[in-house]
Amino acid sequence: MRSDDQTFIEQLESLSRSQNGALIREQLSDERPEDLADALVRLDLDEGLVVLKSLDAEQAGYILVELPTETARAYIRELPDTTLAHYLDILPMDDALDLREELGPERFDALLEIIPAEDALEIRRLMEYPEDAVGRIMTEQFFEVSPDTTMAEVLKDIRLSSEEKYETVNDIYVLDQHSHLLGVFSLRRAIRALPDQKAGELMNQEPVTCEAFELAEEAARRMARYGFYALPVLDRRGRMVGLFTGDDAQTVIREEDTEDVLKMGAVSGDAEAYLSLSVWQLVKRRVPWLLGLFVAESLTGNVLRYYGQGGDDLHMNPLAFFIPLLIGAGGNSGSQVTTTITRALALGEVRPTDWWRVTRREIATALISGTILGVVGFLRAFVNVPILGWGAPLDLSLVVGAALPAIIIWSTSVGSLLPITAKRFGLDPAVMSAPFISTFVDATGLIIYFEIAKHVLGHLGT
Amino acid sequence: MRSDDQTFIEQLESLSRSQNGALIREQLSDERPEDLADALVRLDLDEGLVVLKSLDAEQAGYILVELPTETARAYIRELPDTTLAHYLDILPMDDALDLREELGPERFDALLEIIPAEDALEIRRLMEYPEDAVGRIMTEQFFEVSPDTTMAEVLKDIRLSSEEKYETVNDIYVLDQHSHLLGVFSLRRAIRALPDQKAGELMNQEPVTCEAFELAEEAARRMARYGFYALPVLDRRGRMVGLFTGDDAQTVIREEDTEDVLKMGAVSGDAEAYLSLSVWQLVKRRVPWLLGLFVAESLTGNVLRYYGQGGDDLHMNPLAFFIPLLIGAGGNSGSQVTTTITRALALGEVRPTDWWRVTRREIATALISGTILGVVGFLRAFVNVPILGWGAPLDLSLVVGAALPAIIIWSTSVGSLLPITAKRFGLDPAVMSAPFISTFVDATGLIIYFEIAKHVLGHLGT
Repeated sequence: MRSDDQTFIEQLESLSRSQNGALIREQLSDERPEDLADALVRLDLDEGLVVLKSLDAEQAGYILVELPTETARAYIRELPDTTLAHYLDILPMDDALDLREELGPERFDALLEIIPAEDALEIRRLMEYPEDAVGRIMTEQFFEVSPDTTMAEVLKDIRLSSEEKYETVNDIYVLDQHSHLLGVFSLRRAIRALPDQKAGELMNQEPVTCEAFELAEEAARRMARYGFYALPVLDRRGRMVGLFTGDDAQTVIREEDTEDVLKMGAVSGDAEAYLSLSVWQLVKRRVPWLLGLFVAESLTGNVLRYYGQGGDDLHMNPLAFFIPLLIGAGGNSGSQVTTTITRALALGEVRPTDWWRVTRREIATALISGTILGVVGFLRAFVNVPILGWGAPLDLSLVVGAALPAIIIWSTSVGSLLPITAKRFGLDPAVMSAPFISTFVDATGLIIYFEIAKHVLGHLGT
Repeated sequence: MRSDDQTFIEQLESLSRSQNGALIREQLSDERPEDLADALVRLDLDEGLVVLKSLDAEQAGYILVELPTETARAYIRELPDTTLAHYLDILPMDDALDLREELGPERFDALLEIIPAEDALEIRRLMEYPEDAVGRIMTEQFFEVSPDTTMAEVLKDIRLSSEEKYETVNDIYVLDQHSHLLGVFSLRRAIRALPDQKAGELMNQEPVTCEAFELAEEAARRMARYGFYALPVLDRRGRMVGLFTGDDAQTVIREEDTEDVLKMGAVSGDAEAYLSLSVWQLVKRRVPWLLGLFVAESLTGNVLRYYGQGGDDLHMNPLAFFIPLLIGAGGNSGSQVTTTITRALALGEVRPTDWWRVTRREIATALISGTILGVVGFLRAFVNVPILGWGAPLDLSLVVGAALPAIIIWSTSVGSLLPITAKRFGLDPAVMSAPFISTFVDATGLIIYFEIAKHVLGHLGT
């Protein structure tokens, strides 16, 4: 990450406003695609398009690869075929499917005609593998020799091999005539060996491998466990069909970890960069869980009603029946946000300077999900139908329906701003844990509930 | 991970019982250290010691490196100097400090005398860097050339270099006479270049770098972001002092992610493998947070008392004041456990076959933390001193004090068994999220509370 990222964003914005293609190309041609992608996520779509269209098509392709899927999709709709062809030629296979979905199969097939035929064939082959399988993200480019190849021949082959192939050569794979993997040795080893030594003598005969149909996450964890930078990929008959490289494995692990973290905070969906998601996408990732937990939590209300409706020591004010529901909804929405933001901060997807970008979309998200839960909560309290509702008085039901959005907006604001503020002051944002936010929101949320109750119940009368 | 890990553990157990050193050495000499370490974590200390002492000292050293810190520490106390010297010679610097702490400075210095002098010096140098800094985990072994070295000379140097040095050679670093980093090129590139081409012409002049005093996590994330397998490490004056390799970077990221996940679940402490921690260590990682959140949550009780003690519409049974406290404690302890176990399952540290190893230690942990919270909860309810306590009646205080450990034991059991069961049936354990467990425990926890209340309050009389 550039240390001057905020300045860089502003530079891009003003370049974009200049609409001067030649200037843009000249100023940005030496920038790394990762840095440009990072800034483009923070630009408006129109501004970003000016930049991408001004750049050399190859550079634009490399930037598209680095963009989060959702942002890339938005740009893809607007970019010319030359840029898309460059992109298609280098993108990971996961993204190829997204691209096809976005462009439609016809335009996608047309693009495949533009790129080198061999690459187009590889794309078609790899797209056949199931999602999340190693085969989908492996490369078919690896360096193979037969067991009786001498080291002198190996080095000569490397000198003569295609640019693409030699990109992956840190290890050399020894295959028999039926493509079965016999062993592996490193390029370093080849250099240090005697020129007439044979691959079969030099190789390590028990390489750690993975299978094309295996879950990519499992293969990636195995690679990390043994400290390798690539694993050979075998088909079901033990033939080597590709190479699972370390940087792809790291991406898989990072995304799986992100998805796990989000799931543990009750947020569903793929590991998408936070800033690339729209408010509507944020709502879709959170509201189903919030609603599900809300329904489950209302069981707690049933328990309270069961014990608290008698006339004995356990008798309770019906106001109490809704307490777990309200603090549960506040705690859950707070957990969702703090989990999302803390992870995005850890990955560097969000930085403290993004606080307004975050707050803006979180408040909009909370307004929508708060309204949905408020309506459901009101109905749940008011409707007098067994199982569906509790038939509470209108005034109490209104209190519940009004308290829910208020508590959710409050807990969402707390859950997004506390981790960012912690990071801003050099603290570890992860200490603003889900339980911490929940606890904090519990007490304050109840104040909101009772203040609303005091005014509404006092005036409407029970 | 071996597919037959449970069988492998049993094989180790029976080998250990045989006490036959020669047999153990023969049977295990070809196993990977990662697999042996994985099994040793699950063996009793005595059994594991028999294995480690039987193996060749060098192999034992490699296994110690792969063991989680806490397990390694336990073995270190019992192992002979020859094994420890092999271990010291290859361990990451973080572990060197643990080793010194465990052995005491004198025995540690004695060990440094046994290993090669150059390695001992490197260890002493790197131990000077601050914790979590790149300098602490970099290697000082890298391949450097001057800008006017020809490729023919580079390849000759690689052939003649020491075994240790050539282990790291995928990239070759170009340094000026004052050790300032000028550029980098890959070994592949060197092979494909003309023999009389010079390093200075070939190199990439803008390598991504890191600094020795920089946080290792930041450097590791940068390495991952740009998809590199190593970063050159510079001192404050721009001189290259070491290499931060990709496998060390991955370990850093994995550990930082684990610590973040645990923190987000309100568990403190380093990223230690779950099974290597004792019950007492689990208690230490969780109870401070549980207690802190308990105190914070009792503010919610204050809010309830404030609004609920009047005689108006808001009046409440004092029994209700403790509801947020009880469901909070249940939810928090459930979150702690489910977060810990889900992460351990994702990393493969815990497998479904470990369910009894997990349940055993979780119930013991819950007994201890439940008792502590029960006592604190009873005092908090009963003591009639402003700020410290609420002066509730004895019977109600007893109900709170008894419900807390019961709820905590219940939520801990649910929080540990549900993710393991999910994994066992091929589901993603992460869907047993903290909010899910909390919600589930809320309703059931209240049943526990009211059942205890019904019996105690009924009999003691308020």
